[in-house]
Amino acid sequence: MRPVYLDNNATTRVDPAIVEVMLPFFTEQFGNASSMHAFGSSVGGALRFARQQMQALLGAEFDHEIVWTGGGTESDNTALLSALETQGGRDEIVTTAVEHPAILNTCAWLEKSRGIKVHYIPVDSRGRLDIEAYRRALSPRTAIASVMWANNETGTIFPVEVLAELAHEAGALFHTDAVQAVGKVPMTLRDSEIDLLSLSGHKLHAPKGIGALYVRKGVRLRPLIRGGHQERGRRAGTENVPGIIGLGKAAELALLHMDEENTRVRALRDRLEKGLLQRIGNSFVTGDAGSRLPNTSNIAFEYVEGEGILLLLSKAGIAASSGSACTSGSLEPSHVLRAMNVPYTAAHGAIRFSFSRDNVDEDVDQVLEALPPIIEKLRALSPFWAKDGATGFSPSYV
Amino acid sequence: MRPVYLDNNATTRVDPAIVEVMLPFFTEQFGNASSMHAFGSSVGGALRFARQQMQALLGAEFDHEIVWTGGGTESDNTALLSALETQGGRDEIVTTAVEHPAILNTCAWLEKSRGIKVHYIPVDSRGRLDIEAYRRALSPRTAIASVMWANNETGTIFPVEVLAELAHEAGALFHTDAVQAVGKVPMTLRDSEIDLLSLSGHKLHAPKGIGALYVRKGVRLRPLIRGGHQERGRRAGTENVPGIIGLGKAAELALLHMDEENTRVRALRDRLEKGLLQRIGNSFVTGDAGSRLPNTSNIAFEYVEGEGILLLLSKAGIAASSGSACTSGSLEPSHVLRAMNVPYTAAHGAIRFSFSRDNVDEDVDQVLEALPPIIEKLRALSPFWAKDGATGFSPSYV
Repeated sequence: MRPVYLDNNATTRVDPAIVEVMLPFFTEQFGNASSMHAFGSSVGGALRFARQQMQALLGAEFDHEIVWTGGGTESDNTALLSALETQGGRDEIVTTAVEHPAILNTCAWLEKSRGIKVHYIPVDSRGRLDIEAYRRALSPRTAIASVMWANNETGTIFPVEVLAELAHEAGALFHTDAVQAVGKVPMTLRDSEIDLLSLSGHKLHAPKGIGALYVRKGVRLRPLIRGGHQERGRRAGTENVPGIIGLGKAAELALLHMDEENTRVRALRDRLEKGLLQRIGNSFVTGDAGSRLPNTSNIAFEYVEGEGILLLLSKAGIAASSGSACTSGSLEPSHVLRAMNVPYTAAHGAIRFSFSRDNVDEDVDQVLEALPPIIEKLRALSPFWAKDGATGFSPSYV
Repeated sequence: MRPVYLDNNATTRVDPAIVEVMLPFFTEQFGNASSMHAFGSSVGGALRFARQQMQALLGAEFDHEIVWTGGGTESDNTALLSALETQGGRDEIVTTAVEHPAILNTCAWLEKSRGIKVHYIPVDSRGRLDIEAYRRALSPRTAIASVMWANNETGTIFPVEVLAELAHEAGALFHTDAVQAVGKVPMTLRDSEIDLLSLSGHKLHAPKGIGALYVRKGVRLRPLIRGGHQERGRRAGTENVPGIIGLGKAAELALLHMDEENTRVRALRDRLEKGLLQRIGNSFVTGDAGSRLPNTSNIAFEYVEGEGILLLLSKAGIAASSGSACTSGSLEPSHVLRAMNVPYTAAHGAIRFSFSRDNVDEDVDQVLEALPPIIEKLRALSPFWAKDGATGFSPSYV
């Protein structure tokens, strides 16, 4: 049985076409882009082209608004810390309760070490942001508002263009962690008021270890990493040339195929979701069905442990996840589902299936065949299932 | 004529054997190391092996003393900022006047933005550190002393083991930027008092975008990049798996071949140096002949502009550099040569030739043939040469 990979929100397979364009930059055009000689200057041209490829995907006005980084987490850290330094007199952050740990753990450290006040805007049971609470939290003290474009666990999409406008009304910068959205959601940053945007290569079939921070022209940026003059002084360190070339190509491919792949992937996802809900009782989809990434399905199976499901799925050759890869290993249920008030008995059994353009119909078939007996087996062992489940308990809040 | 690459201190060609071991991790074992399923756990084992390969090269006591980063610059930034946070009550840094911009520009920012006092220890005309001045600068206020293991421009090696002991006598942490030394200088960190060490993959035939920070067991580290729990909470962000695998292999190859390659490369370097000094008058080698990397030669050609030399060398298919790649483009002569009091008329004409195991005898032949007429041509155009050079002026300070 072929392995089934449905954990594309954790990371994606690098597209072989992307590896191919990267290869010459390891062993042939291997120069340092900052060097004066021919080995360096040939690389410089390729880097410019990659920046334009990313500019096109983001719909950015200028290619120099793209700053290459080591990944989404570095981009997120840079955005928050920079805003606190450049937004004189403003010492508060507005963010959400469901951000990625790259934002939440940075905020927690800023609260503890620097006394920064952070407002964590709640979400409702479908994961939708409380926009009135967001509006109330913004003030002349807000340095930056940071709201993810799409949630990594449920796929819920937030209205970041609107949120950016509200942030600007309060004089705050607006940042979005768009790691899960870039390549899946059409973007025209030039027409938005988004100031800063984080993205990561390995979520869109480029390699790990490369990412970018979009910095709107005119927005001051204090680098997180200082040294050489690379990236116009905004991020020091020898450019990761093969990574940048790969991410540029990934941007080109994502833009080219976004519509057709979104349609195809959404159909796969929807068939899986419908099939699982039909076959497995006491289960429900989390997140905002009305505004969700086409590739993500987060399904809560009541009265079972997610870790147990994942283990048995893995034995059946199927990779999925509970929560984000960055928080796996924790025994606590996902902070995202807790923020949505998903009951403990369901949040513990929530599984994320995340698709990419690499997935095919057979992947869905395999899960539909493998998962129902797994849940049945696990529930038979669950003391809670015997007590509540058989009585037909059904959550009323969805 | 085949291109001649003598700029290996700027960056090296990735070894094809290293690309080969990386390739499966792009398209086959592409899982996120933090994931619970089989795609993730197979990657985890490979990452452990790479950490052990690096441990062996550094002679470290424990493999978990290696923290993977995005490169040498990130490692340097992390070391300095962490020390200021963990060394309570200590707010001074001791470093040298000849460090890489990753250290110097971070120090300049700390002075300006946080009022940190930084002591820049001078060097003599051969680039040797003033150890008495270093000792005097250390005090109960010193949070960290940071001294490079080998200078990137001249190859001069500093006695970092001794400097680490002196730092510890003052209760300070000791960090070394060993980006140019790792893989060329034998190291047994377990027998030293070095607390922190930065290294970069692309200086030893691994790719750009990956590096490491050695953190001695027991030394507290505050991460520069926060988020997920990767690297035991010391550096957040999805692990750059192919980069780590490549850097591990590079460490293995460097350790295996260090002695023979150092001997071979030193012979090439010495033949080039001797040949150029014989053929070109008013030229001299900078740096400490008694303690120098085997691969580096920095030669000052008086009364000519380095940029002119590099341009004509590049036209002849030869890549070398003036100063570091990270400061190229600047019209000022190298800060390293200025710190050594190399006269302006010579420092401006200093060229660094840096070898690697990729170089062969023909590379030396080509430079010996191409460079003398280039210098002659440029000097014929130089007003200074007509005035001073013809009179046989010779620097007395070497």
